[in-house]
Amino acid sequence: MNNKLNRNEIEALLAKELKRFSEFKSKGLKLDMSRGKPCEAQLDLSQGLFDTLTSKSLVKGIQDYRNYGLIDGIPELKKIIAELIDVETNELILAGNSSLNLMYDSVQRAMQFGVLGHAPFNKQGNIKWLCVVPGYDRHFAVTQCFGIEMINIQMNSDGPDMHAIEIAITDPAVKGIWCVPKYSNPQGVVFSDAVVERFAKLKPAAPDFRIYWDNAYMMHTLEKTDADLMNILWAAKKYDNEDIVYIFGSTSKISFAGGGVAFIASSSKNIADIKKHMAFQTIGHDKINQYAHYLFFKNADTIKKHMLKHAKIIAPKFETVLNVLDSELKNLGFASWIKPRGGYFISCDLAKNTAKRAVQLAKEAGVIFTPAGSTYPYGIDPNDSNVRIAPTLPNIDDLTIAMQVFCCCGKIAYFENILKQK
Amino acid sequence: MNNKLNRNEIEALLAKELKRFSEFKSKGLKLDMSRGKPCEAQLDLSQGLFDTLTSKSLVKGIQDYRNYGLIDGIPELKKIIAELIDVETNELILAGNSSLNLMYDSVQRAMQFGVLGHAPFNKQGNIKWLCVVPGYDRHFAVTQCFGIEMINIQMNSDGPDMHAIEIAITDPAVKGIWCVPKYSNPQGVVFSDAVVERFAKLKPAAPDFRIYWDNAYMMHTLEKTDADLMNILWAAKKYDNEDIVYIFGSTSKISFAGGGVAFIASSSKNIADIKKHMAFQTIGHDKINQYAHYLFFKNADTIKKHMLKHAKIIAPKFETVLNVLDSELKNLGFASWIKPRGGYFISCDLAKNTAKRAVQLAKEAGVIFTPAGSTYPYGIDPNDSNVRIAPTLPNIDDLTIAMQVFCCCGKIAYFENILKQK
Repeated sequence: MNNKLNRNEIEALLAKELKRFSEFKSKGLKLDMSRGKPCEAQLDLSQGLFDTLTSKSLVKGIQDYRNYGLIDGIPELKKIIAELIDVETNELILAGNSSLNLMYDSVQRAMQFGVLGHAPFNKQGNIKWLCVVPGYDRHFAVTQCFGIEMINIQMNSDGPDMHAIEIAITDPAVKGIWCVPKYSNPQGVVFSDAVVERFAKLKPAAPDFRIYWDNAYMMHTLEKTDADLMNILWAAKKYDNEDIVYIFGSTSKISFAGGGVAFIASSSKNIADIKKHMAFQTIGHDKINQYAHYLFFKNADTIKKHMLKHAKIIAPKFETVLNVLDSELKNLGFASWIKPRGGYFISCDLAKNTAKRAVQLAKEAGVIFTPAGSTYPYGIDPNDSNVRIAPTLPNIDDLTIAMQVFCCCGKIAYFENILKQK
Repeated sequence: MNNKLNRNEIEALLAKELKRFSEFKSKGLKLDMSRGKPCEAQLDLSQGLFDTLTSKSLVKGIQDYRNYGLIDGIPELKKIIAELIDVETNELILAGNSSLNLMYDSVQRAMQFGVLGHAPFNKQGNIKWLCVVPGYDRHFAVTQCFGIEMINIQMNSDGPDMHAIEIAITDPAVKGIWCVPKYSNPQGVVFSDAVVERFAKLKPAAPDFRIYWDNAYMMHTLEKTDADLMNILWAAKKYDNEDIVYIFGSTSKISFAGGGVAFIASSSKNIADIKKHMAFQTIGHDKINQYAHYLFFKNADTIKKHMLKHAKIIAPKFETVLNVLDSELKNLGFASWIKPRGGYFISCDLAKNTAKRAVQLAKEAGVIFTPAGSTYPYGIDPNDSNVRIAPTLPNIDDLTIAMQVFCCCGKIAYFENILKQK
């Protein structure tokens, strides 16, 4: 569309946005749109957790949960989580409050000790990892800190480019892949059954290749019904391939972001191997918090209903972001985004080579977005166009103005760029 | 003494103990004296922790503690712990529920990434570690799982054999030492000021050598007053040597063994380095539990008073063990033990080459002790004499009978051994 505009017209549009920008700047805004944090009202939904235990409570199931022991977690909560993600209890370990910690530890364990009897990655020369992009910066930071070479795999509307993955894993140096299969971070893509099936039957050259299936948003719908994700562990079993996947998740965005319960699920063989090694690391995770979660949620159904309350709080925030994007950017045609059905983010692609500039401008106006590039390994977005927007934390008024700032900055960067090229 | 007994007399004594043993066996006992677990009454002391937070509580200090963030812990509890162990708050990280986890992670971090800019241990060839013996089996298990060569350092009544340590650290392959400086596991030794001072001024050949100072029983007295332990971080500062020590601890045996708060303290330089790396591993530890601990204990003084309540519960149990040892073994002269002033264990040295046999016999009679040898690296006690006794968990009646079984089995093993030699 804007190719039809002449230099003067673009300069006029730019001047208009620059005027808006200086008005925004004069407001002294201090808004943070950078991290996928739940808001206070969401956290309040689980406040009842604090009433589950009192000084009169017996904190006891198969043993006194205040004491040491039970490295794989308490059976009461294991049963609920196992039902939610449809695995057997011997395919599951409940841990502390951080699934990132479980993922990091799994990579580190593979580096130092190897996977299921195979040689440690540390002794296998250059190690490579597939990264679905755009993706989660903290995933990429883990593999980067271990010096693992990261390879971009493009995300499509139904999941990652499986053809590219199938080719990449013919290289025995490729040992893993990061992915968020449901309501992906940041685009909100749900992997189709066909994609999950192709994952499930991957036959990588490396026998110690693992799919890091970070099901962080396993039931985090924004709608009245939750999307379906095929169970990859079951699918893999059909192909005698169940050792290929590590499933991660937590209640961080179900109960408390800072005090939930994280878990890892996998084949019973992988889980036994992980437990054996975990026993060097800890005598057991916090079973009291696990027990409080059990008492609060009681069963899988309650958790599902609980998630609809989350949706009710955050869906209007996503609407707000999408409305501002629609009204400010749709006609100009240079930006694109997907309306997610769940998860914590909206991914917006600005014009090529403008994301860094736009995010920098927004920062100058007091609105922090996740740094441009951070949705890609090494912080390098080859198009410099993707920005991750996290709508959950701010209130609607703040969101509105933050998104107006975002669109204004996106337009400024876009117009500047055209003028440079003319 | 028993050298004066003739074969017949010893055979008679053995027969008597064998008769007792078969009586014990017929009781169908099921007692576990193996692990240093607090008993129910001790755990009940902190039951009020569950009343600190309710659905009406604001879980908020410098931020909403239910949400993500604050990798080094909440300032309210940091202040209390910092006061207790006498360090600055920038020399301290509060973590999850397990100090073992912090120790394991510190060794793993050193293996993979190196210490404070030095080369990773993984790339430095054969790595060695000093182990004060007898010591804590889980310490030794950590270094063993990393393939680190462990070297025994003898414990004396005032701390480890510092002369042996000073010689050992002239080898640049020696990268660390495990020790429990106060009420040591298992002997209950408190390191003297002179010993701490010698630790503080160690100048190892390896610049990346660290003292793993596991202050697990930092205030766990069995008496009315707590023993003094010199502050090693302050002592090391006098010698510009404060990077040499990692101090570990937790509230596991203050509040809940399964749900306390663990910490690591060190020089601000080490702590900054650890925090930087920890940020790859987690967004933050469970701040809600940290906050509940803060609300429950409020200040350092309350914790000190709280520990006297623990002492009141467990001191009689230690008395019981010591009384049975005194009455059954003292006259025979083949066994020795130390009356500890604090901590969780009594260390008993049986006759040479009899500990394995005695513990096996006790097991046959239904009483589990920590496996003989487990207080030494690789599970090898060169004298096969040391047994760690954990008096805290069982009740007095069970303790009495368990210790009678222990003494009976110790005597059987001893008499059998003399007869073999005669």
